[in-house]
Amino acid sequence: MKALGVGAAAGVVASGAKADDKKVYKWKMVTTWPKNFPGLGTGANYLAELIGKMTNGQVQVKVYGANELVGALEIFDAVSRGTAEMGHGASYYWKGKSPAAQFFAAVPFGLNAQEMNSWLYHGGGMDLWKEVYAPFGLVPTAAGNTGVQMGGWFNKEINSVEDLKGLKMRIPGLGGEVIKRAGGTPVLLPGGEIFPSLQSGAIDATEWVGPYNDMAFGLHKAAKFYYYPGWHEPGTTLECFINQKALEELPKELQELVLNASRIANQDMLAELTAKNNAALQELVEKNNVQLRRFPKDVMAELKRLSDEVVADEAKLDPVTKKVYDSFVAFREQAIKWHAVSEQAYLNARSPDTIG
Amino acid sequence: MKALGVGAAAGVVASGAKADDKKVYKWKMVTTWPKNFPGLGTGANYLAELIGKMTNGQVQVKVYGANELVGALEIFDAVSRGTAEMGHGASYYWKGKSPAAQFFAAVPFGLNAQEMNSWLYHGGGMDLWKEVYAPFGLVPTAAGNTGVQMGGWFNKEINSVEDLKGLKMRIPGLGGEVIKRAGGTPVLLPGGEIFPSLQSGAIDATEWVGPYNDMAFGLHKAAKFYYYPGWHEPGTTLECFINQKALEELPKELQELVLNASRIANQDMLAELTAKNNAALQELVEKNNVQLRRFPKDVMAELKRLSDEVVADEAKLDPVTKKVYDSFVAFREQAIKWHAVSEQAYLNARSPDTIG
Repeated sequence: MKALGVGAAAGVVASGAKADDKKVYKWKMVTTWPKNFPGLGTGANYLAELIGKMTNGQVQVKVYGANELVGALEIFDAVSRGTAEMGHGASYYWKGKSPAAQFFAAVPFGLNAQEMNSWLYHGGGMDLWKEVYAPFGLVPTAAGNTGVQMGGWFNKEINSVEDLKGLKMRIPGLGGEVIKRAGGTPVLLPGGEIFPSLQSGAIDATEWVGPYNDMAFGLHKAAKFYYYPGWHEPGTTLECFINQKALEELPKELQELVLNASRIANQDMLAELTAKNNAALQELVEKNNVQLRRFPKDVMAELKRLSDEVVADEAKLDPVTKKVYDSFVAFREQAIKWHAVSEQAYLNARSPDTIG
Repeated sequence: MKALGVGAAAGVVASGAKADDKKVYKWKMVTTWPKNFPGLGTGANYLAELIGKMTNGQVQVKVYGANELVGALEIFDAVSRGTAEMGHGASYYWKGKSPAAQFFAAVPFGLNAQEMNSWLYHGGGMDLWKEVYAPFGLVPTAAGNTGVQMGGWFNKEINSVEDLKGLKMRIPGLGGEVIKRAGGTPVLLPGGEIFPSLQSGAIDATEWVGPYNDMAFGLHKAAKFYYYPGWHEPGTTLECFINQKALEELPKELQELVLNASRIANQDMLAELTAKNNAALQELVEKNNVQLRRFPKDVMAELKRLSDEVVADEAKLDPVTKKVYDSFVAFREQAIKWHAVSEQAYLNARSPDTIG
């Protein structure tokens, strides 16, 4: 349907070959990110380039930033109905379609990046994700990960659970619901409105991603305190989803390559953001005098208690969400035990966590 | 050189197409692992399959277990001289070729898996690795990661630095040198001899990989205490290396696919081992009554002090190793700071490290 005739792939004499042999497929990718947005938008660009390279130019993907073709939060429907062949976003945006979708992006006090990939690729997560998106004619893939995010920017210090009461914080999704149950007021704002709202005092706090992305937004110029860790997004998976019909129109080997390109993009974004967050944190602290603050232990304990409640409540909404929740929670339980003796014990041995 | 004529790729009518268009390349992959060894040998198999699939059968890789074609530790030379096109191992085995090689596998108190990938793909590590292997006519890729390993199996408890004195432990490489400086006796044993040596008391302790791999070796039947964390191998990268001439004989697009297949295998092994270690740890503790023990704080502090000495001494051996060391250590310094407020702080908040 979207194929635009026989292409001229470099150096291949197509005469005599099957008509479809070197057919070029021109695809559109719509995204929830501003065009070229650091880390996330550039991650979408990277995936598109990789698909082009890996298919030797047979699948050419043109990337559209938010609102270029459709609005940021309209991409799910747009790809579902075939307006574009691919989308790049984060699955928690689609909780209105299915509450289960949220588990494939980030869950408060959920899995970190390594654990998310393990659950998705070797713990049954990917099959569940496919099941959740199938009714919409979409095939999902994991296409990036932010790693553990930051807790956010605050105009006042958070010294106790009391300080969360009345707090107006830009924080979407399940994290927002947790803040609400803690007595705060979660506010929904698109990326572009965060900075002015924080600067004017219309909101008291905001979360975004991590040092690299937050610095790109200039958030350090609008708030004093930079809190950690990002309990609400401990390893957010970015997604790609593909219109199933468009995917099936590709020859089998090109389908494989498109899906495999996502796996590379998934790993690459985490590697890139880790390196860039390393450097950006140093710049924020050393050059911009940003005040790093850790959420106090009792605040974290209360946020965890509320998070577990909020997430368990989602599981009550429908049988599919319950199934995804059960799988996720069982995996997390095992991962906590294994990582207690591996990743966690190692990080604490290499550099003792004296602040905790 | 290794190409075996025009292949019959499924469904493609080659008449009229360029002679090389669907040429099939039959490659050999030699490995340091026993054939089909869980996690590592199967990781090599997975990479070979992936290359076959992604190239639509144009690059067919046959995997040889250790000693099937050449000995486990002869694969570097074998691929260097073109006896096989690819090898699958771990770069610390080749410290005799260049001490710098060790940094691309694992360094005591070095980088974990997420950090290794970040250093390799976005921190300059991969370029350095290529530089180190170039004189041997080899192109390296990262092709798997074990995550943080376990500290090993011990027939006696380690309660103080004194208990390391006289300890006969199977532990290779830099970790072995650390144990030596701590007063122990590092022993070199191939995988197959570990179990009987531990059972007979010929050695007092051994490290291997993690719960999944160790259980496959039956090590829990030969020693009582299972120590953590694996300070000596905190995120071991498995490698693939390719004979440069063989790689360059492939059309450009196939070269890209072979290299990209490695990136997928790299991520996939970590995802698989994380899931399987989750489950194996539970089985070891609940069904086999394995005694988990954490190295005491002062023991870890001493091992870290000695590790930093040992690793710094390597850097003195030659200018290339110094260059790799400098890059590695600078990256680690930033990563420690960023992960202190992200991964480490999060893991400690999700499940407090009460044992530390």
